[in-house]
Amino acid sequence: MNPTTPNPQPATNDTGNARQRPIGVFDSGVGGLTVVSALRRLLPSEEIFYLGDNARIPYGNKGAATVERYSFELTGLLLAEGAKAVVVACNTATALAVPRLQDALKVPVLGVIAPGAAAAVAATRNGRVGVIGTHATISSGAYERALRKLSPGLEIHAAPCPLLVPLIEEGLLEDPLTDQHIARYLRGLLEADIDTLILGCTHYPLLKEAIARQAGPGVRLVDSADNCALAVRDLLRSAGLAAPETHTGTLQVALTDASDRFLPVVERALGLRVGDVGLRRVQGVALAGSV
Amino acid sequence: MNPTTPNPQPATNDTGNARQRPIGVFDSGVGGLTVVSALRRLLPSEEIFYLGDNARIPYGNKGAATVERYSFELTGLLLAEGAKAVVVACNTATALAVPRLQDALKVPVLGVIAPGAAAAVAATRNGRVGVIGTHATISSGAYERALRKLSPGLEIHAAPCPLLVPLIEEGLLEDPLTDQHIARYLRGLLEADIDTLILGCTHYPLLKEAIARQAGPGVRLVDSADNCALAVRDLLRSAGLAAPETHTGTLQVALTDASDRFLPVVERALGLRVGDVGLRRVQGVALAGSV
Repeated sequence: MNPTTPNPQPATNDTGNARQRPIGVFDSGVGGLTVVSALRRLLPSEEIFYLGDNARIPYGNKGAATVERYSFELTGLLLAEGAKAVVVACNTATALAVPRLQDALKVPVLGVIAPGAAAAVAATRNGRVGVIGTHATISSGAYERALRKLSPGLEIHAAPCPLLVPLIEEGLLEDPLTDQHIARYLRGLLEADIDTLILGCTHYPLLKEAIARQAGPGVRLVDSADNCALAVRDLLRSAGLAAPETHTGTLQVALTDASDRFLPVVERALGLRVGDVGLRRVQGVALAGSV
Repeated sequence: MNPTTPNPQPATNDTGNARQRPIGVFDSGVGGLTVVSALRRLLPSEEIFYLGDNARIPYGNKGAATVERYSFELTGLLLAEGAKAVVVACNTATALAVPRLQDALKVPVLGVIAPGAAAAVAATRNGRVGVIGTHATISSGAYERALRKLSPGLEIHAAPCPLLVPLIEEGLLEDPLTDQHIARYLRGLLEADIDTLILGCTHYPLLKEAIARQAGPGVRLVDSADNCALAVRDLLRSAGLAAPETHTGTLQVALTDASDRFLPVVERALGLRVGDVGLRRVQGVALAGSV
């Protein structure tokens, strides 16, 4: 009414405020904290709000419609926390939901697949790339599509490794039985003479040493977590959304099930201190755009 | 108003109708079909409505409050299907939710733990009983309580076997790696000289032969599924709720995630034909009595 009243939300302040807002990160559980760990190392000024849907974990052997519905729901909770960008720190959810999330939302949405595919294309010398992940990720063909878009001539060998997530969640990171499971899963890929292997699940960086042992020195491992963090940095810079470098970012973690047996394993393996964990209730209620 | 109008729901007809209504059975996924298979063999006249919550499977490593909430929700869906009795075909949900379900509901609620404990007490000769199950089932202490109530002097040895469910769901029922995992899990129980082992998870009957191989001929296996079916038969008879013996019962199956990779494994292993599968949406909405 009063023409001298300042606009309460001028565009410049908007951007200023937006830069201080958290990066919202979600995963089916706490495995996506591998991405958070990489983000914290690379972008120490950023606030991070992490949401793990451990009440419904795992996503990797569930149907596409279910995973898409869950992803919209979690994204809604991150937006309610004021997220300036959404990072899908779960390969299964990236494979099945990121394109529709990007269509539906104004804030930038970034998954783990495109960055991993780009890093693999840069890494391979012989043009033979392996991908491992959950059933849902592998059968979606999302990595193949992302790799072929960048380099149509690649030879791609994909293998679902469904038992690696439960083995990791039991903390069997250095265990002869885990090694035997990995050897079995990698057999076909190694016979196909891959020189690059995408760890297409955000749990797998916790098993990097065991996988490297079985893959041998001739295979380069591409870690979703590190490459996703690099892509987040570039995205925030180009969108003018990076936090001021003088700021010291904090990490807030919320889960959908208050109790999580796997969290101490992750904290120990990553050297990450999570502190107090919040609780969010998921209601199955669909956001616009959900199925 | 008209005193000659017959009571539309006389007590006798009520009982008559109730007998024709289905037994409602729920589990975290399709593993509880081992209980359905036992029910179908023992009670071929009964209608069965089975609900598997595969959108949120597994329950075995989730928190007690979460499992209780899910159990109330699934029970509500079974009551909406007209269930005359509710069978909790999941050891984890039995351990964490059956007492509160029994307090809250008028229809009889039966879990898998009390029948399994009774069968183990009848089976043991040396008084040393082993129990295997998920993390949540074992850490609840529900089997110990049920066993001690029946036989306070028993020596009970319990071991969580968290990887058996994923191994079963991958169809690795006859596999050297599965045998190695079982051997590791049973080592302590066998050293304690148990002569009876409760398979405290409704998935485990699918692994009965492999478990028997590792346990050896001196150990009697107690199967939740068979003993639960016997208890359901006794319960329906004593409550006057058994279906007329002339009736041929049918099986209806509904899931919360339309796609289930494990269902064909179960059908093949049990020789059970499930037919068309319905879909039910779980909304996280709490029934009265839920947390």
